[in-house]
Amino acid sequence: MTGSLAIIGLGPGDASLLTESARRALDAAEELVGYYPYVARVPERPGLNRHASDNRVEVDRAREALRLAAAGRRVAVVSGGDPGVFAMAAAVFEAVEHGEPGWRDLTITVEPGITAMLAAAARLGAPLGADFCALSLSDNLKPWPVVTARLDAVLRADLVVALYNPISVARPWQLGAAFQLAAGIRPPETPVMFARAISRPDEAIRVTTLAEAPQVPADMATLVILGASTTRLIPRAGRVPFVYTSRKVEAA
Amino acid sequence: MTGSLAIIGLGPGDASLLTESARRALDAAEELVGYYPYVARVPERPGLNRHASDNRVEVDRAREALRLAAAGRRVAVVSGGDPGVFAMAAAVFEAVEHGEPGWRDLTITVEPGITAMLAAAARLGAPLGADFCALSLSDNLKPWPVVTARLDAVLRADLVVALYNPISVARPWQLGAAFQLAAGIRPPETPVMFARAISRPDEAIRVTTLAEAPQVPADMATLVILGASTTRLIPRAGRVPFVYTSRKVEAA
Repeated sequence: MTGSLAIIGLGPGDASLLTESARRALDAAEELVGYYPYVARVPERPGLNRHASDNRVEVDRAREALRLAAAGRRVAVVSGGDPGVFAMAAAVFEAVEHGEPGWRDLTITVEPGITAMLAAAARLGAPLGADFCALSLSDNLKPWPVVTARLDAVLRADLVVALYNPISVARPWQLGAAFQLAAGIRPPETPVMFARAISRPDEAIRVTTLAEAPQVPADMATLVILGASTTRLIPRAGRVPFVYTSRKVEAA
Repeated sequence: MTGSLAIIGLGPGDASLLTESARRALDAAEELVGYYPYVARVPERPGLNRHASDNRVEVDRAREALRLAAAGRRVAVVSGGDPGVFAMAAAVFEAVEHGEPGWRDLTITVEPGITAMLAAAARLGAPLGADFCALSLSDNLKPWPVVTARLDAVLRADLVVALYNPISVARPWQLGAAFQLAAGIRPPETPVMFARAISRPDEAIRVTTLAEAPQVPADMATLVILGASTTRLIPRAGRVPFVYTSRKVEAA
């Protein structure tokens, strides 16, 4: 088989946040596969066939991409952010594991990208400056008690927590439940950051506290960061404060 | 003050893994500040003054950069990977918080980069495909019992664990202790990945098990990933297996 499949991270939105390697992989593609807003980010050009699909069909989309590659095409599967973080790479490898034996011999590469928490952190200062984790609040693929058990564990361990997929039309109450759980473990003045659509025209940043967080609107394009005990604000006149998490933890 | 300070992520090594935005920020700099191997990655050019320093002097280096910016210079502080992940951004904001009041009014920006765990994950497949965390094994700035308490918590919560700063000449035993702790919680066949110097000429990848991991050599340039219960290998003839973590968690 001479086809290939590149799983490409488009970063948070603005084209300047792509890596040069990701850009080259896009330029080499003959077939472009992805969730439609990500496919829409890649400019049309002759010789590039576009296959945009709806959300929540990740494994079907992955199989389509693998079939095209197995037929000898140079295929690019695009994700927002980094493809390995709550995005398409895991779906592609799941499809490889359970699919045609020959798919394992395909040249499959992953082009990393700037995932939402890194883009958000960069705008805020350095909120991920110490130990941190990335949790998805979606209970589409894991039971909600697993989500809450993990959240409880990392909050008690005093990690900074980046919450992906905080809310959607189909999952309207999970973020509120997460804040309620956090409020039982961390003090009300704990910094909480809402970072929406970083680097896109509708970018919005909000720095608040755990006490106020339930009143702040969020949507599918929002990443939420819960601070740890060492997360600090640096106030600035007339501007959003810098936020950073100190690397130092004092002995108890 | 007209100076500015950009804290720039250089990615894992190869220049093609820089973002275009980071490249532009480097091109605009007049003063280049950083740990010497990172400064060495940026080509010399007229008009760019270089300030390379040793490791473990992060806050001194940050203060030097802030003083240059306050004097009106366009300063770039460079880090490997992403500057917000166990790197220079937290040190800079710590220096801002405790430094000259005027430093808060400087234009300080952070250019995100591909951090080691994303680069390693991309080479392996999608080992960070579900919930995961990033922990530093260094006990320079936090007591070792804090490190082990966090590691214990995230292992029991079944997160994938990326271990930064796993080992150094000054900290030779911490990685072995971490494997021992993990072996008390996760089964011996748990996948463990060693990713060294990704995208650099001396890149090396090793996929092994928790049982075998203590025998695998590691150094300061190595990132270690401990798999979760849903981390799976896809064997391939004559090649390193693909590794991915399934997004699905079954109900207990």
